[in-house]
Amino acid sequence: MKAAIAGASGYTGETLLRLLAAHPHVQLTTVTSRSLAGQPVEKTHPAMRGRIGNLCFSPSQPEKLAVDSNIDLVFLALPHGAAATFASPLVEAGKKIIDLSADFRLGSPELYADYYGQEHPHPELLQCASYVIPEIAPSGWEKSAIVACPGCYPTSILMPLVPLLENKLLDGRNIVINSLSGISGAGKKADLFYSFAERQESVVAYGLPRHRHLSEIEEQLSAAAGTSVVVQFAPHLVPMKAGIATTITVPGGESSLECLYRVWEKNYGNSPFVTILPSGTFPDTAHVKGTNRIEISALHDRRTGNFVITSAIDNLIKGAAGQAVQIMNLMCGFPETAGLI
Amino acid sequence: MKAAIAGASGYTGETLLRLLAAHPHVQLTTVTSRSLAGQPVEKTHPAMRGRIGNLCFSPSQPEKLAVDSNIDLVFLALPHGAAATFASPLVEAGKKIIDLSADFRLGSPELYADYYGQEHPHPELLQCASYVIPEIAPSGWEKSAIVACPGCYPTSILMPLVPLLENKLLDGRNIVINSLSGISGAGKKADLFYSFAERQESVVAYGLPRHRHLSEIEEQLSAAAGTSVVVQFAPHLVPMKAGIATTITVPGGESSLECLYRVWEKNYGNSPFVTILPSGTFPDTAHVKGTNRIEISALHDRRTGNFVITSAIDNLIKGAAGQAVQIMNLMCGFPETAGLI
Amino acid sequence: MKAAIAGASGYTGETLLRLLAAHPHVQLTTVTSRSLAGQPVEKTHPAMRGRIGNLCFSPSQPEKLAVDSNIDLVFLALPHGAAATFASPLVEAGKKIIDLSADFRLGSPELYADYYGQEHPHPELLQCASYVIPEIAPSGWEKSAIVACPGCYPTSILMPLVPLLENKLLDGRNIVINSLSGISGAGKKADLFYSFAERQESVVAYGLPRHRHLSEIEEQLSAAAGTSVVVQFAPHLVPMKAGIATTITVPGGESSLECLYRVWEKNYGNSPFVTILPSGTFPDTAHVKGTNRIEISALHDRRTGNFVITSAIDNLIKGAAGQAVQIMNLMCGFPETAGLI
Amino acid sequence: MKAAIAGASGYTGETLLRLLAAHPHVQLTTVTSRSLAGQPVEKTHPAMRGRIGNLCFSPSQPEKLAVDSNIDLVFLALPHGAAATFASPLVEAGKKIIDLSADFRLGSPELYADYYGQEHPHPELLQCASYVIPEIAPSGWEKSAIVACPGCYPTSILMPLVPLLENKLLDGRNIVINSLSGISGAGKKADLFYSFAERQESVVAYGLPRHRHLSEIEEQLSAAAGTSVVVQFAPHLVPMKAGIATTITVPGGESSLECLYRVWEKNYGNSPFVTILPSGTFPDTAHVKGTNRIEISALHDRRTGNFVITSAIDNLIKGAAGQAVQIMNLMCGFPETAGLI
Repeated sequence: MKAAIAGASGYTGETLLRLLAAHPHVQLTTVTSRSLAGQPVEKTHPAMRGRIGNLCFSPSQPEKLAVDSNIDLVFLALPHGAAATFASPLVEAGKKIIDLSADFRLGSPELYADYYGQEHPHPELLQCASYVIPEIAPSGWEKSAIVACPGCYPTSILMPLVPLLENKLLDGRNIVINSLSGISGAGKKADLFYSFAERQESVVAYGLPRHRHLSEIEEQLSAAAGTSVVVQFAPHLVPMKAGIATTITVPGGESSLECLYRVWEKNYGNSPFVTILPSGTFPDTAHVKGTNRIEISALHDRRTGNFVITSAIDNLIKGAAGQAVQIMNLMCGFPETAGLI
Repeated sequence: MKAAIAGASGYTGETLLRLLAAHPHVQLTTVTSRSLAGQPVEKTHPAMRGRIGNLCFSPSQPEKLAVDSNIDLVFLALPHGAAATFASPLVEAGKKIIDLSADFRLGSPELYADYYGQEHPHPELLQCASYVIPEIAPSGWEKSAIVACPGCYPTSILMPLVPLLENKLLDGRNIVINSLSGISGAGKKADLFYSFAERQESVVAYGLPRHRHLSEIEEQLSAAAGTSVVVQFAPHLVPMKAGIATTITVPGGESSLECLYRVWEKNYGNSPFVTILPSGTFPDTAHVKGTNRIEISALHDRRTGNFVITSAIDNLIKGAAGQAVQIMNLMCGFPETAGLI
Repeated sequence: MKAAIAGASGYTGETLLRLLAAHPHVQLTTVTSRSLAGQPVEKTHPAMRGRIGNLCFSPSQPEKLAVDSNIDLVFLALPHGAAATFASPLVEAGKKIIDLSADFRLGSPELYADYYGQEHPHPELLQCASYVIPEIAPSGWEKSAIVACPGCYPTSILMPLVPLLENKLLDGRNIVINSLSGISGAGKKADLFYSFAERQESVVAYGLPRHRHLSEIEEQLSAAAGTSVVVQFAPHLVPMKAGIATTITVPGGESSLECLYRVWEKNYGNSPFVTILPSGTFPDTAHVKGTNRIEISALHDRRTGNFVITSAIDNLIKGAAGQAVQIMNLMCGFPETAGLI
Repeated sequence: MKAAIAGASGYTGETLLRLLAAHPHVQLTTVTSRSLAGQPVEKTHPAMRGRIGNLCFSPSQPEKLAVDSNIDLVFLALPHGAAATFASPLVEAGKKIIDLSADFRLGSPELYADYYGQEHPHPELLQCASYVIPEIAPSGWEKSAIVACPGCYPTSILMPLVPLLENKLLDGRNIVINSLSGISGAGKKADLFYSFAERQESVVAYGLPRHRHLSEIEEQLSAAAGTSVVVQFAPHLVPMKAGIATTITVPGGESSLECLYRVWEKNYGNSPFVTILPSGTFPDTAHVKGTNRIEISALHDRRTGNFVITSAIDNLIKGAAGQAVQIMNLMCGFPETAGLI
């Protein structure tokens, strides 16, 4: 398998580089960057020294990639808007696309325009795209021309909730989600707000009440529930480099904790990347760091009648690059864990 | 004013030492510690070098303090259980007590036994005690023999909520509270779980569903609402030394954001230690660190109908030692901000 | 005493604001900023909320300050180059100047041009300026029109070494200095290199072999030794917000550790801001954080014949704003520790 | 190849587990722990979930391992003293040993007794042992019954210096070494000093003047120089989980920077785990984290005549477990980078 990465200058791109460079079944042939074309990849990503030879960034020219016989599959690690534009000629040329931006995550171009503040550049492509968390995506997605790799927050939220909604253990009402993210989630950028001296000893909520990821969270939860689901989602920044911890409060209704765990066991018992923790123990971002795993746990509080569901992932791996590689593995018939354990 | 601190070996005790040593109206005459008696305070608290002269720890003998004419007021920074036992002879001797433990925070000895796993050692003292967050405590508390200084989580939760419940803007139902605490909140102890290498890059929920502070949170919220209030409280550890950020989701009902802010303005507009942030901006633990301030903010999400209320404090100051000094200032007729700005 | 701060948008300016706002003998009347004029100081420095009332930034107009009868003394927290230009009319008008930039730290304009890459804007003012670490500056400096407050690295280096050189315990040869600085030392800026995600888990040397502070370090060491001193100075960035730890290796020659400690005792025994630690214990940045203290210690390694001297300060306090306040206290006849303990 | 790990409860053991579990040519058959025997490895090392199946700790019984046909090679990650005792029956039984403790690092049992405060338990085994940094160890070591894997500090120091001493570019005099280590270097333990709240914002020197690693550093440098080398070694703790940065000052004498780089190029130009950085750029622990690489760089300061040499490694990988795997790869004829990139 010959793969390319478009837009590999950020943290997601770097993680993808690292995973693909060590992948047993992939040859990474091309890495593009608009601003860094011609430069050695190592210069931008010193941690990649010794792992990728003399690979240099190519210019960001989708038309060239489209006719490059050394490319079978393209990972897009571009900003939203740019990704769809880049994808268009590639899809036409029959290249497989795994997109890590938001451009193919929403089924509705109206919702996209509402949350991203711009018209979708290629709404006609949405029908070729599938939104894929491999453990819960409806079967058949492997044939899609474009696979949208979900965002980091959504992965930590949808994995515990979707099976519960699909199995009617929850009705989708009064869900309250608090997520805590490491700083790399904001991307690789020169910004005073994200400087070490500002973030050290700082915890702060942000993006309330309508963080962009809310759009895909609610669209997916609604699909799972078979009814419109509206949630309260409060993201926070915490002083660590990577990781997301999510805590979800949801009314338990008539459902029992045993049922909840049974549904999880059924859905995830054989998934190599899902760890179901016993009730009363809690996922820790430090335990999933550097892995493609998600940890999930739940408890029932009989005082309030709520379930409290917790999860943890590495935002750059299961929340981005690792999940993209997992998607590729399944699309290409490789073992699901190839290059990921 | 001549003050003593009983049990000053931990982080709260150290912060109290620092504040009292610099206080314009207080002479710190005695600092006790069972395990460190005879040793210079500086040895245990190197950050106090140059601030407290040659002060040494005295033995932990409440009977001695009770008859010491060089002590008017005693701060108790002892473990729960020990604090009440220590307080008993001091109260009898007419010394004022400000207690930073849990021993006088709950009105009900049954609730205490339930949450703290032991009988209250001196339930007869509960009637002499007041639970005091100065900005919201009912007037008259200054005359109490014992003042219970609230816990760190409760301060961050009760200050935004109590006035709203008292003014019937909220009915107390379906409150979901997520709090994120720095590691010093766990105390000063040799424990692998709290080691740097374990906590770095780690965010984890804990203490669910019945953290000990829940008892005082619900007792106070119930008092404010005039009805029994049960909340979902999820504390988390985040990798910083000090600070608590709290995010509260609560159904807005018929209330408007304007009303909410009006109630806050009315209650806190003149409080030197409360900063009410405009809706849409969020309290940051880094901004309150080293201060006795709390920052609070709220927004109304018309999609969900909820208010999302956020707050931030320094857990060792407004959440412990600073609030204790503020209480002392008011008890003794000093300016409220003496030694705290 | 009525004081102004020119250029208070950075970390040093903020620390100065905090110290002066709480100072018992100072009224802070004016705070200037070229870029923030007209804005509330609180907006830029949220940690100052509740401490400075409604103070707003004034425009950066030295001529106005020069004729303002509400200003007796001006702290300059401006970039080098800008500081001297700002100072000129103020000196002429008889205002006292405490400068935290590099503009008045060097006696030689040639050295300044060499290290700072530009001609000194006002070399004629150098003769009115004194370089002052209060504990070691030659007496008489209090009358200077301009006092240059030393840099953070130099303070941590000169305080242990100068008395030893002056007393001929060291001859100034083969001094090797390694310093480790928190990220705030780089200033408050939007720069990818200083972002949290880049600095977390990162330790890196920089500025070798000729960091700008080397110029004042060597000029002062040479003055103390009475001969030209050239040192090896290796600064490093470490992942903390504030603090500098310095480790100095120097040949012991014929000198004994006892002599070294005796000289320190004699020079610093009564200094409220110097803590001399016993040989074999080591200064810790965490112990001086938030204080104007320096901790120093030394040991003699008989295997190598070297002294190893260690020190620690808070770079923003004893390394900048705190030292400036200490200088002001002594210039104005206030107690040396006023507003600093 | 069937491998065992003896003593896998700490950070080094965990890293070794992770590397061996993913190694393409190794089957990890046994993991021992005195205190954890019978427990699942995942319970102690949650980050290993999903990577090691149901592996449980076996009792710490070297005699059993000695006769176990499912073990070809044993990694010892035991405390010093315990390691040699454990090794003895294994060597007798013909098992290969890679020891990560200090027990086989020193050629001289007297030096061992001096630095480790106890007699060497099996001095007769020292003759079967080689001290191996693979890139610089004299050829032939692959046949050794026991290979001593060097300490973390020594690796960061010896790799840049040994070739320079061997090639007589340095004479071994007046070497000053400052090293900065992440907290995991102190091991996995419950100790207040290593708690998050104590180490956050803390930088401190320790272990001066005779850190235990000094013994192997000087023994190896002396062997390389062909003369007794005595160095000044100052280790420091810095607030990060993993990583070591080392800065070495050494008189340049007649040698040129070009010669120095030429020697490094010759020795390390083909080494997959050595990155030689251009003079004027500096190794960063963040760039080697998670890798088995060392980065080295040097500059010549013509003002002082010194070389300043800097290096960075991940203390748990190139400084411990990764180097042990590299050693195994070479001993067993696997590609040097197997399981390490």
